[in-house]
Amino acid sequence: MASVAVVGASGFAGALCAALVERHPRLQLDVVTARSDAGRVLADLYPRYRVERKLEPFDADRVAEGCDAALVAYPHGAAAPTVEELRTRGLKVVDLSADFRVPQELYERWYGPHPAPKLLGEAVYGLTELKRDEIRGADLVAAPGCYPTAALLALLPLKEIAADTFVDAKSGVSGAGREATEATHFVSVAENLKPYKVEGHRHQAELDAYFGPATFVPHLLPIDQGLLATCYVRPSREVTADEVRTLFEDAYRDDPFVEVVDAPPGVRDVRDTNLCRIHATAVGGTVIAFAAIDNLWKGAAGQAVQDLNLMLGYDETEGLL
Amino acid sequence: MASVAVVGASGFAGALCAALVERHPRLQLDVVTARSDAGRVLADLYPRYRVERKLEPFDADRVAEGCDAALVAYPHGAAAPTVEELRTRGLKVVDLSADFRVPQELYERWYGPHPAPKLLGEAVYGLTELKRDEIRGADLVAAPGCYPTAALLALLPLKEIAADTFVDAKSGVSGAGREATEATHFVSVAENLKPYKVEGHRHQAELDAYFGPATFVPHLLPIDQGLLATCYVRPSREVTADEVRTLFEDAYRDDPFVEVVDAPPGVRDVRDTNLCRIHATAVGGTVIAFAAIDNLWKGAAGQAVQDLNLMLGYDETEGLL
Amino acid sequence: MASVAVVGASGFAGALCAALVERHPRLQLDVVTARSDAGRVLADLYPRYRVERKLEPFDADRVAEGCDAALVAYPHGAAAPTVEELRTRGLKVVDLSADFRVPQELYERWYGPHPAPKLLGEAVYGLTELKRDEIRGADLVAAPGCYPTAALLALLPLKEIAADTFVDAKSGVSGAGREATEATHFVSVAENLKPYKVEGHRHQAELDAYFGPATFVPHLLPIDQGLLATCYVRPSREVTADEVRTLFEDAYRDDPFVEVVDAPPGVRDVRDTNLCRIHATAVGGTVIAFAAIDNLWKGAAGQAVQDLNLMLGYDETEGLL
Amino acid sequence: MASVAVVGASGFAGALCAALVERHPRLQLDVVTARSDAGRVLADLYPRYRVERKLEPFDADRVAEGCDAALVAYPHGAAAPTVEELRTRGLKVVDLSADFRVPQELYERWYGPHPAPKLLGEAVYGLTELKRDEIRGADLVAAPGCYPTAALLALLPLKEIAADTFVDAKSGVSGAGREATEATHFVSVAENLKPYKVEGHRHQAELDAYFGPATFVPHLLPIDQGLLATCYVRPSREVTADEVRTLFEDAYRDDPFVEVVDAPPGVRDVRDTNLCRIHATAVGGTVIAFAAIDNLWKGAAGQAVQDLNLMLGYDETEGLL
Repeated sequence: MASVAVVGASGFAGALCAALVERHPRLQLDVVTARSDAGRVLADLYPRYRVERKLEPFDADRVAEGCDAALVAYPHGAAAPTVEELRTRGLKVVDLSADFRVPQELYERWYGPHPAPKLLGEAVYGLTELKRDEIRGADLVAAPGCYPTAALLALLPLKEIAADTFVDAKSGVSGAGREATEATHFVSVAENLKPYKVEGHRHQAELDAYFGPATFVPHLLPIDQGLLATCYVRPSREVTADEVRTLFEDAYRDDPFVEVVDAPPGVRDVRDTNLCRIHATAVGGTVIAFAAIDNLWKGAAGQAVQDLNLMLGYDETEGLL
Repeated sequence: MASVAVVGASGFAGALCAALVERHPRLQLDVVTARSDAGRVLADLYPRYRVERKLEPFDADRVAEGCDAALVAYPHGAAAPTVEELRTRGLKVVDLSADFRVPQELYERWYGPHPAPKLLGEAVYGLTELKRDEIRGADLVAAPGCYPTAALLALLPLKEIAADTFVDAKSGVSGAGREATEATHFVSVAENLKPYKVEGHRHQAELDAYFGPATFVPHLLPIDQGLLATCYVRPSREVTADEVRTLFEDAYRDDPFVEVVDAPPGVRDVRDTNLCRIHATAVGGTVIAFAAIDNLWKGAAGQAVQDLNLMLGYDETEGLL
Repeated sequence: MASVAVVGASGFAGALCAALVERHPRLQLDVVTARSDAGRVLADLYPRYRVERKLEPFDADRVAEGCDAALVAYPHGAAAPTVEELRTRGLKVVDLSADFRVPQELYERWYGPHPAPKLLGEAVYGLTELKRDEIRGADLVAAPGCYPTAALLALLPLKEIAADTFVDAKSGVSGAGREATEATHFVSVAENLKPYKVEGHRHQAELDAYFGPATFVPHLLPIDQGLLATCYVRPSREVTADEVRTLFEDAYRDDPFVEVVDAPPGVRDVRDTNLCRIHATAVGGTVIAFAAIDNLWKGAAGQAVQDLNLMLGYDETEGLL
Repeated sequence: MASVAVVGASGFAGALCAALVERHPRLQLDVVTARSDAGRVLADLYPRYRVERKLEPFDADRVAEGCDAALVAYPHGAAAPTVEELRTRGLKVVDLSADFRVPQELYERWYGPHPAPKLLGEAVYGLTELKRDEIRGADLVAAPGCYPTAALLALLPLKEIAADTFVDAKSGVSGAGREATEATHFVSVAENLKPYKVEGHRHQAELDAYFGPATFVPHLLPIDQGLLATCYVRPSREVTADEVRTLFEDAYRDDPFVEVVDAPPGVRDVRDTNLCRIHATAVGGTVIAFAAIDNLWKGAAGQAVQDLNLMLGYDETEGLL
């Protein structure tokens, strides 16, 4: 049994972290913190999650006193100093922000000066299917972005044969966060589908770091939860649909949260689960791979808990089935 | 041909006013104004409407110089002083706010001190089907609220026989306006239906003023445009379904925008139209009347143009079919 | 540990029954049956539920051999003979159809000749909050309809003071079942809200049987899961909001799945839960009560499992939290 | 003034054809036909369109007697014999099916034996922006498929420089037609996004015929109207974003229904219009072009009327603004 704090529990990902920790058989939710919502009860903000806990202002000493580990769900830039305070006090940390996902040079190209470069060395990228062994021994894990989670799972088995790669990704609105803006207004989203950040989305950094060159375009879907990455790969040599399928089955044979299926997945198939459903094939010489996840689960909070399970020596599926 | 200004054209209702005026065969759109969005082109905010005009800051003299009439789409309280400036300069005005819809006493009970009480005397309530003749001669018309438009059209033919009245109303999100708030965030609205302002919604004032006592509860629907009022009336005497139907057919025989139909209307049936579709019947002794409108058309901008048509001596359907 | 069959597991309610039984700590899913989908794997029809079991054609002997109890999710009329076959073989049965919900006379008024009148005597109406003790000793329980579940929970505490009652109910599309029709086509539902069966919906029978006279109008919402009953009650004597609130708190103090809350509930607040959230108040002399449920959970499969828990002597919340 | 029949007016595209013809200043709607819905009034099926005409069974002589032209909205295979009957009687025809869109060989590869090969010679492909002059003189025009309309408009200006091409397309449900199936059930579509026909969609034939090799994958969106094609092109030589932009501006300078814009379009921007909004750019060496249309307008009925306008010598925008 480990005692856990969720720092920044009032956002979509943080709130789900709190709900997952609270239901977890081997974790105990000790503290939930928030900035502007401090003082409110989490269940009032997110009735469905039923976490009857009062949000507190963040206090590193208070958190360190009671907790063995923390899930930090702050925006990038704001996360790193908080993570540093918690690491200094000896807590294991999973950080859901972008602050520790990629090497410093890449970080600074996409996000600006790094707020805690010294910690970068100890951080492990939390895509479990890629870094399971390193995560097991880690004290600081950076949970991947939602788009890279789906895109990397769809692309990594193709790394050796990808000559040219295109990722057309579509995400539900919860991926844009809880802030009320013109872009997240119901009337802007309903009956719409809109590409955005075509000139460059920061999640590109993770594709560059862990896969290689790929053209990546995100689109906003009129749904709340769910993300699909449709990946087109021009292979460097001829491959059959069967070979492609075998590549994926071999790659994910032992991964409890990746399902390789024989028809294209809908995002609804994985809603409210930590699963990534993948269909990969070759059609007319093109390799096409689809990966569907719930952006709040496998794309954020679910994967963070999966990482924490490993860091604490638990089975990675604990509390996530 | 009359020259028209739309004051406050960056909100949902104001933008549709501008679009309707621009396509109108006998109106000419001369000025569109906005506060925070001044300088932007309306077509960039609302691509579907394709009104390629730059929003200007409001200037009463500038508006009065070129225009015969104005549609004012400001929030209540802010509207009255602007209306006053325009009336002083001789323009005919349709005000879409609540400022001139009800007598002063009722206004102050629901909205607070009235900002321009002297003008109240000349204002006519713009529910065309109720006040057509007065609107024809008016210089200042107050376009009704979206909920009262549907509820009054469903209730007025029943006024003589209504002993007890309940209005269960449901509106799309565009009725809540363009402001980005937690309540209008896509994730709050999608897959939801939520009652609100149960203790008292300001539109009650219009029901009180033009119908009489009625219990009224609004609900927020996960759609952008559309409003349904389901009205339950305990009658003071027995009535048959046929009698009820006849009451409505007689009441609206000459109203071009009210359709009395023989099955309950869906809000989709009137989307992007100025129509109100009504079905009224009696079941087991209860009178039930449904009225469906598009809250932005008949519930706001469409009805405002319908009013303006009458004020200018045109046919009320001009530019609205 | 009890062994359970789900008969008719390919519909929306039946499939959720199967999923709830499979995850239940004290139930074991032994058989899932279906008619036209026999031979298919349930997880292929409902990927989210992940029930990897093959649907079999129904065979009463086969079911009786392995199972202690059955959940029957057939349409009304078709359910009764199947229930009879299972009861003859000694299984405890929860029937999700209308066949055993109301006395014979009422049944025949709304549904036609009863297919198994002899069994009616032993059937208990499965609204747990109303009939808990009888359900505990029952061998045959009729799970209530989705609309009556919400409406009765909102109305029963008001039974003594209700002089005139109106139920405006709104349900998501899953309540209409899995059959593909013009009414369930995405294009008919999206951006719509539509009243239906205004002249009489069969669920009226349950209101008549367990509450008394009430006007009831259902509406179809553009969401998949969720149901709200907005109930208007003209009381026979003056009551305050506090009195109303106390009536509900007293009524549901010991009911684990009813939450009396102090603001109107959205249907999203109870999505994918077995909860009924109720807000009740008095405004200007009218009593208003809102009840929100997930129509597939508390309105169908969840409540059926809640019933089965009691019939088997388990805690009613087992497997439902 | 020309007199027009709409043959197959009960489907989504046919009904919009009827609505567009009825409002058209230079066309007169003479006959609307349907098969299973014959006898019903079109306005009862599609209240929003308000076409108060009774659907008749198809009778070629009856149509030929009164009409100068026909819009045929039948499924492929069924369309060709009907078109033949009308052409034999001298009517100008726009066919909305696939039957006359591509050369016989391509047709037979994707659709099977051609039902009227002799007519293929006189048919012109109705993508106005590609074939305007030929359409002007044509008696038989094949309105393009919805996906090819968007994809071709996004790709044709790139034909000379496209070395490798990928089209990721997303369409609203109305594109799947009015038939009620498991795939069009609200509960299958809501909160979902699903790729389909990955192994080959018949619209590929039009891309092959008018553009060249391209990988094409369609996805079903949870909206009713709207289609976006996101096109990725690996260019055969280096191009800048400015060059790409210029290619498109030059290509569409004189096309009234194509808007080249400087930000990625949402499908909502073109809803209920005949416009195609295109944004094209180059990012990191990849050319990316987005085209958004309303699949029922520019992707079907709107384009059919645009074609008919040209065939009759009218301005192509008549009745479509």
